[in-house]
Amino acid sequence: MDKNKSNIDLEISDRRNFFKKTVAISVTALAGTSLLASQNATFGDGEPEILNHAKWGQVWGDPVSKNLYGVPSPYEHNVIRRNTKLLASGNFRASIAVTPLHESEGIITPNGLFFSRSHGGTCFVDPNEFRLMIHGLVDKPLVLTLEELKRYPRVTRTHFIECPANGGQEWRAPQFNSLQFSKGFMSSAEWTGVYIKDLIKDLGLDLSKAQWMLAEGSDNSEMGRTVPIDKVLDDAMLVWGQNGEALRPEQGYPVRLLLPGWEGNLCVKWLKRLEFSQEPWYAKEETSKYTNLKPSGKAIQHFYANEVNSTVVTPSPEKPWTHLKDGDMVEIEGLAWSGMGTITGVDLSFDGGKNYVKAKLKGLVLPKSWTRWSYMHKYKKGDVLLLTSRATDDAGFIQPTIDEETLVMGVEAVYHRNAVETWEVTADGKVNHVQIRTDHRETKGVNNA
Amino acid sequence: MDKNKSNIDLEISDRRNFFKKTVAISVTALAGTSLLASQNATFGDGEPEILNHAKWGQVWGDPVSKNLYGVPSPYEHNVIRRNTKLLASGNFRASIAVTPLHESEGIITPNGLFFSRSHGGTCFVDPNEFRLMIHGLVDKPLVLTLEELKRYPRVTRTHFIECPANGGQEWRAPQFNSLQFSKGFMSSAEWTGVYIKDLIKDLGLDLSKAQWMLAEGSDNSEMGRTVPIDKVLDDAMLVWGQNGEALRPEQGYPVRLLLPGWEGNLCVKWLKRLEFSQEPWYAKEETSKYTNLKPSGKAIQHFYANEVNSTVVTPSPEKPWTHLKDGDMVEIEGLAWSGMGTITGVDLSFDGGKNYVKAKLKGLVLPKSWTRWSYMHKYKKGDVLLLTSRATDDAGFIQPTIDEETLVMGVEAVYHRNAVETWEVTADGKVNHVQIRTDHRETKGVNNA
Repeated sequence: MDKNKSNIDLEISDRRNFFKKTVAISVTALAGTSLLASQNATFGDGEPEILNHAKWGQVWGDPVSKNLYGVPSPYEHNVIRRNTKLLASGNFRASIAVTPLHESEGIITPNGLFFSRSHGGTCFVDPNEFRLMIHGLVDKPLVLTLEELKRYPRVTRTHFIECPANGGQEWRAPQFNSLQFSKGFMSSAEWTGVYIKDLIKDLGLDLSKAQWMLAEGSDNSEMGRTVPIDKVLDDAMLVWGQNGEALRPEQGYPVRLLLPGWEGNLCVKWLKRLEFSQEPWYAKEETSKYTNLKPSGKAIQHFYANEVNSTVVTPSPEKPWTHLKDGDMVEIEGLAWSGMGTITGVDLSFDGGKNYVKAKLKGLVLPKSWTRWSYMHKYKKGDVLLLTSRATDDAGFIQPTIDEETLVMGVEAVYHRNAVETWEVTADGKVNHVQIRTDHRETKGVNNA
Repeated sequence: MDKNKSNIDLEISDRRNFFKKTVAISVTALAGTSLLASQNATFGDGEPEILNHAKWGQVWGDPVSKNLYGVPSPYEHNVIRRNTKLLASGNFRASIAVTPLHESEGIITPNGLFFSRSHGGTCFVDPNEFRLMIHGLVDKPLVLTLEELKRYPRVTRTHFIECPANGGQEWRAPQFNSLQFSKGFMSSAEWTGVYIKDLIKDLGLDLSKAQWMLAEGSDNSEMGRTVPIDKVLDDAMLVWGQNGEALRPEQGYPVRLLLPGWEGNLCVKWLKRLEFSQEPWYAKEETSKYTNLKPSGKAIQHFYANEVNSTVVTPSPEKPWTHLKDGDMVEIEGLAWSGMGTITGVDLSFDGGKNYVKAKLKGLVLPKSWTRWSYMHKYKKGDVLLLTSRATDDAGFIQPTIDEETLVMGVEAVYHRNAVETWEVTADGKVNHVQIRTDHRETKGVNNA
């Protein structure tokens, strides 16, 4: 331990040279723990890091260490989740850390970059003390340990989780000239757990009465949400695995509810209790939040699924086209997703939504899952583009324009904004988040990140 | 910085109480970086950790921190890659860190737990200095920067990578009473990159002559392997993305070759050069290693695909059934994989391979990818089971028995062992790695881990 301690001191004492020192130490056969600690100590810092290291290939590399949990390259130190005062609601414990979507690939978000939102901070549940109570309108109430829960037949599914406030700052105009801050309140993972319908099979659920299920968390906010019984008996899961390992504490370790395609806050983390009932609960977090104020002054409740949506991912304000030369071929790439089903198509516009061409869907196209789309483009230096994507799903929905959406919803709503997004590519290849109204007024994004 | 430094000192100074202190500090609004560092400083240590923390839910949880790259729960500190002298070949830089398969879920291995093997240690390539040279039998040789490489149409595919030495210590008898050490020389991920066939489309490859491609790494061992042109033009990829983020240094950051289904060592890491030629290279690492000695004294070369294979994952020596009561329903679950195609079925035996029943394939069944299988079992206390799994693939192959395999290969080979594996469940629910010969001699695993 003393050895590790002193190495960490050494490496942290001079951040600029930490990498050089790590390499030097590794040549004298240092155990891996120290490298792990030193990388993370500097990892996640916003400053660019100048890595003053020996040339690779000319010295021994680092050993394959025992007891190692791997970490990203120090060169990727800017690929991290981020927060901002604008999302913090005055309290960094009840705020959102958003995913760097501009660096995302495929349909998996690594657990270290999975977006996080909590109402009372991240709690660290002891898995040995974890208990799940299932009660209410059942003949045989049940209390399960984690070990008992894991004996049920496990199911693995790939689904996104999205905060319904994704983009919710931007009903009036773009607030962030950033893909991460505009659209990063969502991530996607491969989840492993058990279907609730399998779990409650033998409990004698009274289906003549049970219309709702309360899910309650054991965190400081005692997060509670009520779920209609149809969703519970369709594809609701209790999950303990995320991308092949245990959930992270910020994602509800050891067990969270997963309602594929539905609002992230309904996927209650640090789960402790399921109670079946005839009436909904109207828990604090489903009346104080997660209702949508309409122009009439009335609010929409029981608004669950994240509607069909999409965005351009490349290019983005964070990864512009300033390096492209005239005539370069380049891939315009993006994400589409729907909490109501499977993506059936994505259209791409170069003029902010006046005209559209068909993009290509690629890779796995799964229900209630991120779907990647692509369009190969010959870059013409000097052209100004207004890139707008528009997705459709097999539930029959298509993304509305911002005018169509605000006509129905007004601009006082926070949640469930799924109008098309536009990203302007300037003549010199910079990318701006803009909003295009039907009369083609354009509002630019500001730098609130 | 001084604040972070002193917090890390404090927390590391008393490991037993680190968690308590972290909570205490977080209540006074500590930035997240420190928690990250403190968790990792203790993470990956083999000792059990007694976490003496305040009750969750009764105090504020930790804040959603800015600039955070998430880490596992401290309670998961034993779920890590491991090494042993038996795998180290006298040099921990040229050895294998194996994946904790007994804790795996689904068909994704998180990047932090992805197995690692290198021939000259892990090198840390500067992505700004990365260059890929493509030359040899092409009209237009090419040198690409990372940015230029990433302009090609990206492809995302889920594939396992397996060291052909997976289980190679065990031709004669089990060496490890452990799933992690017996079968953990493989992992699976969602890879993003470009097909080589797309990359070289306009380079004028001379197909009348070009029969081979050399792939060369920029690590200290200058790892070089030769790939037949048919594989190159089929599904060979250059990948930079792994599970939605950049490759980790240990997996070849910034770019590695991926030959779906083929030996891990062929998937050259820290890639710097591709050269097309008429003859194979017989590079150091394809003559000194990765040939298979047969009983005749001759060795097999050009042996590439990992053959159809499978294992029980639950139960395992690491996760036995000692907690089960007589009559409990429990899921027997495992993995099957083939580098030659898609898994078509898995059979499960309870008597070491005399009789088999059909297991159920579940989740995504993808080519050259891990496939999960399952069998629900009513546990009878006192029964001794010999659990053997046997997979088939759509290339028409089935796993051999150990006798069938050693009849052809002898026991001097290291690589490409894919005979069926047997896991003994004892009367009290413990699990042992055993080897069953056709005459039903049983050899038990020893504790070399």
